[in-house]
Amino acid sequence: MRLLIDRRGKKYLLREDVEEFHTSLGVVKLRDARPGEKLRSHLGHEFYLLEPGVVDYYDRLPRAGSIVMKKEIGPILAYTGIGSGSRVVEAGTGTGALAIYLANVVGEEGRVYTYEMREDHLEVAKRNFALAGMEDRIEAKLADVRQGIEERDVDAVIFDMPDPWNAMQHAYNALRHGGFVVAYNPYIEQIRRAYLAMQEADFKDTRVIEVLEREIEVKKVGTRPRTRMLGHTGYLAFGRKY
Amino acid sequence: MRLLIDRRGKKYLLREDVEEFHTSLGVVKLRDARPGEKLRSHLGHEFYLLEPGVVDYYDRLPRAGSIVMKKEIGPILAYTGIGSGSRVVEAGTGTGALAIYLANVVGEEGRVYTYEMREDHLEVAKRNFALAGMEDRIEAKLADVRQGIEERDVDAVIFDMPDPWNAMQHAYNALRHGGFVVAYNPYIEQIRRAYLAMQEADFKDTRVIEVLEREIEVKKVGTRPRTRMLGHTGYLAFGRKY
Amino acid sequence: MRLLIDRRGKKYLLREDVEEFHTSLGVVKLRDARPGEKLRSHLGHEFYLLEPGVVDYYDRLPRAGSIVMKKEIGPILAYTGIGSGSRVVEAGTGTGALAIYLANVVGEEGRVYTYEMREDHLEVAKRNFALAGMEDRIEAKLADVRQGIEERDVDAVIFDMPDPWNAMQHAYNALRHGGFVVAYNPYIEQIRRAYLAMQEADFKDTRVIEVLEREIEVKKVGTRPRTRMLGHTGYLAFGRKY
Amino acid sequence: MRLLIDRRGKKYLLREDVEEFHTSLGVVKLRDARPGEKLRSHLGHEFYLLEPGVVDYYDRLPRAGSIVMKKEIGPILAYTGIGSGSRVVEAGTGTGALAIYLANVVGEEGRVYTYEMREDHLEVAKRNFALAGMEDRIEAKLADVRQGIEERDVDAVIFDMPDPWNAMQHAYNALRHGGFVVAYNPYIEQIRRAYLAMQEADFKDTRVIEVLEREIEVKKVGTRPRTRMLGHTGYLAFGRKY
Repeated sequence: MRLLIDRRGKKYLLREDVEEFHTSLGVVKLRDARPGEKLRSHLGHEFYLLEPGVVDYYDRLPRAGSIVMKKEIGPILAYTGIGSGSRVVEAGTGTGALAIYLANVVGEEGRVYTYEMREDHLEVAKRNFALAGMEDRIEAKLADVRQGIEERDVDAVIFDMPDPWNAMQHAYNALRHGGFVVAYNPYIEQIRRAYLAMQEADFKDTRVIEVLEREIEVKKVGTRPRTRMLGHTGYLAFGRKY
Repeated sequence: MRLLIDRRGKKYLLREDVEEFHTSLGVVKLRDARPGEKLRSHLGHEFYLLEPGVVDYYDRLPRAGSIVMKKEIGPILAYTGIGSGSRVVEAGTGTGALAIYLANVVGEEGRVYTYEMREDHLEVAKRNFALAGMEDRIEAKLADVRQGIEERDVDAVIFDMPDPWNAMQHAYNALRHGGFVVAYNPYIEQIRRAYLAMQEADFKDTRVIEVLEREIEVKKVGTRPRTRMLGHTGYLAFGRKY
Repeated sequence: MRLLIDRRGKKYLLREDVEEFHTSLGVVKLRDARPGEKLRSHLGHEFYLLEPGVVDYYDRLPRAGSIVMKKEIGPILAYTGIGSGSRVVEAGTGTGALAIYLANVVGEEGRVYTYEMREDHLEVAKRNFALAGMEDRIEAKLADVRQGIEERDVDAVIFDMPDPWNAMQHAYNALRHGGFVVAYNPYIEQIRRAYLAMQEADFKDTRVIEVLEREIEVKKVGTRPRTRMLGHTGYLAFGRKY
Repeated sequence: MRLLIDRRGKKYLLREDVEEFHTSLGVVKLRDARPGEKLRSHLGHEFYLLEPGVVDYYDRLPRAGSIVMKKEIGPILAYTGIGSGSRVVEAGTGTGALAIYLANVVGEEGRVYTYEMREDHLEVAKRNFALAGMEDRIEAKLADVRQGIEERDVDAVIFDMPDPWNAMQHAYNALRHGGFVVAYNPYIEQIRRAYLAMQEADFKDTRVIEVLEREIEVKKVGTRPRTRMLGHTGYLAFGRKY
């Protein structure tokens, strides 16, 4: 894939074989263009061509339902220590955005096992995995994680589903000693229940956090937090298997 | 290294060759113990033995000065898309905590180049890299990043230093097209200056954020954010080279 | 004035002499209606009639420019201890919304002196004072507070203006011992300068705060902070004359 | 009462008849001193003498249990429009800190009715009311507000008690049309129940908020939010009788 960006910052994710792209700022010829190049449309407007990264796939790939925000992906990565070579279970897949992020981190030596009950969502996700070039690192499973997790000795299990408590014991069984479980839920009642289920399943170091991100405006006249902000997406509960 | 945890959650990072460990809860024999095992001290108290991960090295390794918090490491990872195989420049090294986190993500195929001006800090950091088993992935450089960055086509440059604006053009030169620059600073005046320097150096998608993390208490009587919280650590400024 | 509220919660501030009011939910006859009554439009829709309070005047009166939010009026009241009988200086008047709030608290025994340089704003404000029935408690002055404050021994001076530092010494002179000065500004650079000017003018107990208000959604499915929130309005600096 | 302040900002609330006060900075003679004066201890240290205001009574009076913070008193005042002449019911009294704040605002023409079940708390509160000179405006009642509220047509009812839902209908009956009810509770489960009880009792404009206050440090080297902050005190639920 290639990432085309116009002078207003608008981004387009394009397949390698697109030779000509039509925008409101004119037609851009892409045939021999290489990432890092500045291009010009036939109307004379400047365009940038980049090799897309995981942040671009996250932003631009087709979606099916809501996805975990980057502001939550950050703490999931930082507090579990998922890294190159990690093996991670995730449920549910949804659009596959989180799985792509995880796959980018675990690399070719690692593996992401993603569970999804809805076939239509899984189809979208699988196409996205292929577009992002991550299909070799991700095992997409049409299965109900509440019925069990097949993998063993994984480094992390991440739940982005309404009732993680129904799969908490499976997470415990799937994890290696020292591995982490994470639950992401928008409602306080859900995260409470997820947290209590973690304790029930004998997870240690259990805690619940909420992450707020404020954007700061740097203007000539002065500096200030932005007037509008994202007030809430969800809570994160963490636990660790000793 | 091995991680020994007592029943109160207190954690000890121990070398592989430690055969016996003395704690206030008794002596623990470690000679033939393996990660994942439950041990008992001679006083009968239970201990867990784990293989430490990057989160443990972060928490337990000796420090030299303040370090970037995990709550900021999260967004650095999420917004730059650093992953397995990435090549990342970082300055200054400090204790090496961020470098270890980055090394864990970039893996053996990737590389972390960390710049530090103070020899004593770099010595602490290098010992920490070795303890964490990351020394092969990290190139520790005793150098002033404001004098230049030698690497080229790196995926990210991360500044944890008081005056990142003095190295911003070097960051631009070192980055590949599509790569990200990050500055972390505690004061609003610093982050403003870092941000303006990013714009000056022709970085795009520039923005400044602040991340707040609230801990939620789940108690029998009810659920609530914790009374005390960390009010501020620092601001993060991001930019991207097109 | 009277406050008419339809079944969707839409509120209308009406003069006492309005006998009939036309809304999209039908015509409401108000001639003999008294506050506290439920009325019906000719289309059968229910309406409530209330005696408006200061919160309604704040919400419904015509505006000229931006006004101090209730979330900031709260701490201004709480941290200065303005109460019944207090004498308060305020600049600039703007729409008069803050002055009306202050007048409601200081009562007939107190007094609000409000300074405004723009005649058009002061005219809007004065009409609002009359509509809210507060004109006897508020002295609206067409004057530049940076040229001086005439009043002496006042309990509080509140600045809602771009450059409060240019009137800080006047505030000090106008206040009684034990009285408070407040500055409200959106930009961090402004509030810093206001704060330093307070210290320069020998104010004690100086501090700067920012107030964030999160709205919590209580829904059948669960409880959570609202997705969108007001990220920032302004900072408040406080000082006290000893 | 008089307020004595030493050069470090330490404050002492003293009775009028105190003629000499011993501090670690020396003995201060108060016999003929008047508010607004600077005094000197026998060791030569400077002291300020002020007439205390409601903020000082709040800070210095003896406490019995936890009290509503000023950061919550602010929004209670701002969102209910309590002012000079208002009649307000409050339960429970606790230390009386909120009642004193309310009494300061409602003035001599208004009235605060405060309900408390514990005789020992009420005794502390009544002494505090007298010390603050507010005893004429506050009616302190040894009674269980869940058994009923005697007053009628009051402007506001404020609950600072664990189970406000058990008195919500009484609040509705006590309020005038247009009056406000407020519940203050630390746990999300409590505030949810209070909110639902408000809706059950036919209150309109119901909403729940949480207020966060960040302190901003202005130092020579730069400006930043303080490292530590108060993470949570309680939630506020509001409703209005139409």
